[in-house]
Amino acid sequence: MARPTGLIATKGIELLTCPTPNGFKATILLEELKDAYGLEYTSQNINISLNIQKEPWFIAVNPNGRIPAIVDHDNGGLAVFEGNAILGYLSRRYDTENRFSFAVDDDDYTRAEAWIGWQHGGLGPMQGQANHFVRYAPEKVPYGIQRYVGESERLYGVLDARLADRDFVVGPSRGKFSIADIALLGWVDNSRNAALDLSQFPNVKAWFGRCTDRPAVRRGLALPAPSRSSLLKELDPAAVEAEAEVKKLVDGAKEKYGYKYTSP
Amino acid sequence: MARPTGLIATKGIELLTCPTPNGFKATILLEELKDAYGLEYTSQNINISLNIQKEPWFIAVNPNGRIPAIVDHDNGGLAVFEGNAILGYLSRRYDTENRFSFAVDDDDYTRAEAWIGWQHGGLGPMQGQANHFVRYAPEKVPYGIQRYVGESERLYGVLDARLADRDFVVGPSRGKFSIADIALLGWVDNSRNAALDLSQFPNVKAWFGRCTDRPAVRRGLALPAPSRSSLLKELDPAAVEAEAEVKKLVDGAKEKYGYKYTSP
Repeated sequence: MARPTGLIATKGIELLTCPTPNGFKATILLEELKDAYGLEYTSQNINISLNIQKEPWFIAVNPNGRIPAIVDHDNGGLAVFEGNAILGYLSRRYDTENRFSFAVDDDDYTRAEAWIGWQHGGLGPMQGQANHFVRYAPEKVPYGIQRYVGESERLYGVLDARLADRDFVVGPSRGKFSIADIALLGWVDNSRNAALDLSQFPNVKAWFGRCTDRPAVRRGLALPAPSRSSLLKELDPAAVEAEAEVKKLVDGAKEKYGYKYTSP
Repeated sequence: MARPTGLIATKGIELLTCPTPNGFKATILLEELKDAYGLEYTSQNINISLNIQKEPWFIAVNPNGRIPAIVDHDNGGLAVFEGNAILGYLSRRYDTENRFSFAVDDDDYTRAEAWIGWQHGGLGPMQGQANHFVRYAPEKVPYGIQRYVGESERLYGVLDARLADRDFVVGPSRGKFSIADIALLGWVDNSRNAALDLSQFPNVKAWFGRCTDRPAVRRGLALPAPSRSSLLKELDPAAVEAEAEVKKLVDGAKEKYGYKYTSP
């Protein structure tokens, strides 16, 4: 695959992404909009290990140098970065029947904004730090492992409580599948990477099953490729063994600091 | 002061807050709305060290058990949590002339949403982790100190570049003071706490001065009390000495990991 060197589309939405929990927010909503309205889009897979997202053409789209980012060639080339804003912009402009979102003057618009903010400022960053300390940090730091796995568990507990009597995070009665769910799906799909166990959060697990019954969600979670640790894949025996080692590491860190689960 | 035990207002906005960078988002906007429109509000200072924010009456307002949160008694008791949603809701509903915000169909609405998201999911959580590892962690973890101070510096560099040719973060031409600035002010005011030095980011420093020339911003940053590490206060000689020790700690962590500043 050739290395991206600039924008390639001249009309419609162009998405710059890669298969990460934040990237999947954009792909899921775009796949839903395609199914619902026939909205087509162009996508470029940005290999972040090559630092393509730090090149000047990318920085002109997102000054923060991170995926996902979109450009709307049908709206003067408006560039939008940060998952909350991508979900907000695409739904305000293209989800004209509010199939996955809420009218701006509906209180559920604000409730969705709050839950998306909760994901964006809480569950996402904290689970991301858990990933880092559990998997990627060049040295094992028990303090960091316990801190971020523990905080992620607290946050999953908040979501589990929210879903105790509803099918979806926001919306009247038992809720409506919406951008508030989409914001979370990539992170929950990646929860094993942070040593989180969904069997501890049965309402979250049921909700994840409900959402991933949607074809667009399943496609979105595999674009441009599935996450390596996706819950939608079975682990092979070698991976099962590796995960048991990771669990030992995390349990050791929790024990060292006398961690007890509590939420909220 | 009596310990809060429930909501106390029956009309208008009721704010549950305490003097933290996230709390100041709400107080600054509410003070601006008071100056612009005469909007009055009721506020309760929540002592988070007493875990009042984990009590059932608070959880009914914010299921995440964090400040700030608001209740709009003039809108059926709608509860709004997460800073991005509080800024969004209050400005959509009460900033009817868009003095501090942008009309929903204006592209600057989306740009403000993006920059607020950037603060909410990036600068806020990362600077918060820097605070933790530099000041509050019960053990000194050089890896955590370097990681989060370094990431915070990267993010301040992004903001500094954004402000190179503008007065405010979002808005036409050189920008307009808005909720995109308000989201950031409490964090920048608290930057010393994370061992960040604004002299490294001259555009951010000038912007901070510009924003804090506004009486409502200065009041908001002191409600319900000023932050202990506010840049608006001079350090006393003992504090200057203590800060020099903190700088040594941070410089040592940076050196240990061969950190070099880079942004974005």
